[in-house]
Amino acid sequence: MQTSTAISVQAFQALVNEIHDISATQAILGWDLETYMPEQGGPLRAKQMATLAKISHNMMTSPEMAEHLRSLRQPGVLEKLDTMSQALVREVGRNFDKSQKTPIELLQEIVETTAEAHKTWVEARANKNFKQFEPVLRKIISLNQRMAEAQGYGDSPYDALLYDYEPGLTVKQLDPQFKQLKADLVPLLKAIQNSGYTPQTDFLHQGPFPQNDQLAFSEQVLKDMGFDFAAGRLDLAPHPFSSGASSMDVRLTTRVDVHDVFSALSSSMHEGGHGMYEQGVNAALNRTPLAEGTSLGIHESQSRMWENLVGRSKAFWSHYLPKLQATFPSLKSVTLEQFYHAINRVQPSFIRVEADEVTYNLHIMVRYEIEKALIEGTMKVDEVPEAWAAKMQEYLGITPANDAEGALQDIHWSHGSFGYFPTYTLGNLYSAQFFNTAKQQNPALENDIAHGNLLTLKSWLNKEIHAVGKMESATTIVQRVTGEPLNARYFVDYLWQKYGDIFNIQR
Amino acid sequence: MQTSTAISVQAFQALVNEIHDISATQAILGWDLETYMPEQGGPLRAKQMATLAKISHNMMTSPEMAEHLRSLRQPGVLEKLDTMSQALVREVGRNFDKSQKTPIELLQEIVETTAEAHKTWVEARANKNFKQFEPVLRKIISLNQRMAEAQGYGDSPYDALLYDYEPGLTVKQLDPQFKQLKADLVPLLKAIQNSGYTPQTDFLHQGPFPQNDQLAFSEQVLKDMGFDFAAGRLDLAPHPFSSGASSMDVRLTTRVDVHDVFSALSSSMHEGGHGMYEQGVNAALNRTPLAEGTSLGIHESQSRMWENLVGRSKAFWSHYLPKLQATFPSLKSVTLEQFYHAINRVQPSFIRVEADEVTYNLHIMVRYEIEKALIEGTMKVDEVPEAWAAKMQEYLGITPANDAEGALQDIHWSHGSFGYFPTYTLGNLYSAQFFNTAKQQNPALENDIAHGNLLTLKSWLNKEIHAVGKMESATTIVQRVTGEPLNARYFVDYLWQKYGDIFNIQR
Repeated sequence: MQTSTAISVQAFQALVNEIHDISATQAILGWDLETYMPEQGGPLRAKQMATLAKISHNMMTSPEMAEHLRSLRQPGVLEKLDTMSQALVREVGRNFDKSQKTPIELLQEIVETTAEAHKTWVEARANKNFKQFEPVLRKIISLNQRMAEAQGYGDSPYDALLYDYEPGLTVKQLDPQFKQLKADLVPLLKAIQNSGYTPQTDFLHQGPFPQNDQLAFSEQVLKDMGFDFAAGRLDLAPHPFSSGASSMDVRLTTRVDVHDVFSALSSSMHEGGHGMYEQGVNAALNRTPLAEGTSLGIHESQSRMWENLVGRSKAFWSHYLPKLQATFPSLKSVTLEQFYHAINRVQPSFIRVEADEVTYNLHIMVRYEIEKALIEGTMKVDEVPEAWAAKMQEYLGITPANDAEGALQDIHWSHGSFGYFPTYTLGNLYSAQFFNTAKQQNPALENDIAHGNLLTLKSWLNKEIHAVGKMESATTIVQRVTGEPLNARYFVDYLWQKYGDIFNIQR
Repeated sequence: MQTSTAISVQAFQALVNEIHDISATQAILGWDLETYMPEQGGPLRAKQMATLAKISHNMMTSPEMAEHLRSLRQPGVLEKLDTMSQALVREVGRNFDKSQKTPIELLQEIVETTAEAHKTWVEARANKNFKQFEPVLRKIISLNQRMAEAQGYGDSPYDALLYDYEPGLTVKQLDPQFKQLKADLVPLLKAIQNSGYTPQTDFLHQGPFPQNDQLAFSEQVLKDMGFDFAAGRLDLAPHPFSSGASSMDVRLTTRVDVHDVFSALSSSMHEGGHGMYEQGVNAALNRTPLAEGTSLGIHESQSRMWENLVGRSKAFWSHYLPKLQATFPSLKSVTLEQFYHAINRVQPSFIRVEADEVTYNLHIMVRYEIEKALIEGTMKVDEVPEAWAAKMQEYLGITPANDAEGALQDIHWSHGSFGYFPTYTLGNLYSAQFFNTAKQQNPALENDIAHGNLLTLKSWLNKEIHAVGKMESATTIVQRVTGEPLNARYFVDYLWQKYGDIFNIQR
């Protein structure tokens, strides 16, 4: 490498480091806002966040950054950089190119419209009236379409939006997977409903299960999972999330309902999955955008794996139920089978965030199909409630009574986010595909889990998925780890095996 | 006002607001570092702080800022601005001028030397060996002298350093006040020691006094004082401090020793005094440097007033002792007089931060006289331990056995801070002077305190001292509120009255 290139790489990395320091700062301010900030702190916190965002944007789009990228992306230069520098140039360049392609007026219009849209959505939802949300939603869709045009795409404008959340995936790849998934899930759900068996769940909701005991139990499980409390914490927040400043400073949150013994633990394991991904990234990538999960879908695969494939498994509870019973004596007469069945009850419902493993992805299918049609222009905004009701009836067998339990339930569209929903299902699909490989490569895995040894899985995830951070794309990771591209079959097989057993049904 | 000036003021304020947003962010990051940050977060947090400091410095010294100040400080322009804008131009201009007068190499050298000095000081203190600290201290003094020369001064180079902490005060004003104070305190201490009475304090240190009960008691007293928990919080930290992002977001911290029933409460009241100052500033000043206490001395007057003039008063405890006894039944046989005497025991000791109200300022005199002589060049660094011992003997009647309980005990010099120590004593002097006026203007004040009504004092402080923030200087505030300049007499009178009564001695 020439000396001038070495100097240029160094200056480029220094600038990237500073931009990332700001993003770490934003993460801590955001965490503080949801956990400890006094209630009157809000308005000025918004100003602080806006100032940091402006500074970061200015640094990201500065002439200095443009010059670094121009010189490092020259033919004959990029290939000679070390792997990490190449990945960094690629990743930062991707964001830079996006910002270059985005007209500043469009960005401004999106900020203003979504601020307005959020308020309108809150009111419309309170009034259960989709009509009220329609005008601003129409505008948001048009802005998203303009953004897609500005960024460019191959087959569908939806691809350009998807790119923000799951870079590399396209409608062309997703459609057949999702179609097959739907074709498999609908009959599974019908079979469960026709089984005539409904697990008893009342003991989960009695209590009271004191908050401190629930938190202590969650912390113990997180420790067993391998979440490092010297490099992270668990706090309370109204809507659980995971964030952090670096692999050495990861913040999990959960929420406790003293009349629900399972939800705080379940959300802790979910957020713990996200947090352990961040903790597991190679520390050499810190202070760069490579020190993050590679995509929302892969991130969600980690949270869903711990929440569902581990936290709702019989193996896990064969070890932890006695401990839970020691903490909460009111559960002492519950058998392992009763408990396992209770936390895996399947029941179609209107609200996505309360859905079980079987119905959850059908909720996503409803949203994916509708938002794709809206962006592609094959559905009009005023057709959404009817389409929503029809799809809910077709996939889940229920029809929402009003828009609040229909198309107004999710915050995403009011934020301007189109292309986000599919990543939830991708997370579920990846999680089963990864877990299948983990079991093949660690034949004792389930036995280890049944003995409370969760570190077998954690170490495997660290090595196979976490360490590379964003150095590899989602598609590369899936192919490298499992030997094939995204394949919905593993998830469907997992569900059939698990729920076939619980509900005594056959495929 | 001309339109172009109005536009210029607006742009100036917008830039100042953004710089202040960064400083609010720094405060939250600093608070998080001391309270909730996981232990491994440190190294990257330091990078985040350094990046924010660099960005803020660049904005503060930008050509844009220079141009705003140049245009707004023109004759005929400044006088036409509204009062707040004038104060803002003055305050920001003061910092800008300072940075303009500071050679960048000097700044760089200070940063590097103090980083080194801090490490050396930690080691020297562990080894109780001042000799080890001498070379780097010599360098720090020389850097401070160069800084004083760069900034300029009237009579003493020490004035230029004092200006950073207590703008407007000079050696010429301080010397006679401090001299008189010393002349009054030394005989008071002797009289106390000759009284033959030593209050019993053992019941303060028994317990255990459970941490949660102590915290709840501190929170209740803070609420009674008028600290607004909707705009602030109280948390635990190893070294108590107060900070915050704005008048709507103030963070207090305290530390609890389960074998000390008084220290957590006392430090909570101290930090509460600081925090209520910040909460009390006119909210219109938020997002500007005017939304802060006007000087360290005035700030300390607020903390010391609540800690000592209220929190160590008989009136206060006549209301709160029964409540404390209800919380901690082991105290139930302690009388008001016993308790009041116990928390006001006077005893010369080597460590400043553990000193009582009478001896505390003598510790400051030792430091003030030595650091002034060092900066003025009339004392050499290797003469410090001997001078320290001689002054401790003269003022307090004790001689430190080693440098760790002598000249190495304080962190300030290793940070490069010269001119800081006097503000502690200024705080004590101001507190008594203000409190005297408060009593004159509110004849029922002490009776109110004796009935747990602490809001009389809080409202008076809000109105007289807090609201103006940094719109007025310390000297202006003291003159306006008390009708005269700084006068040590009030503090000495307060001590003689209080301790004369406790120790049955006469002036």
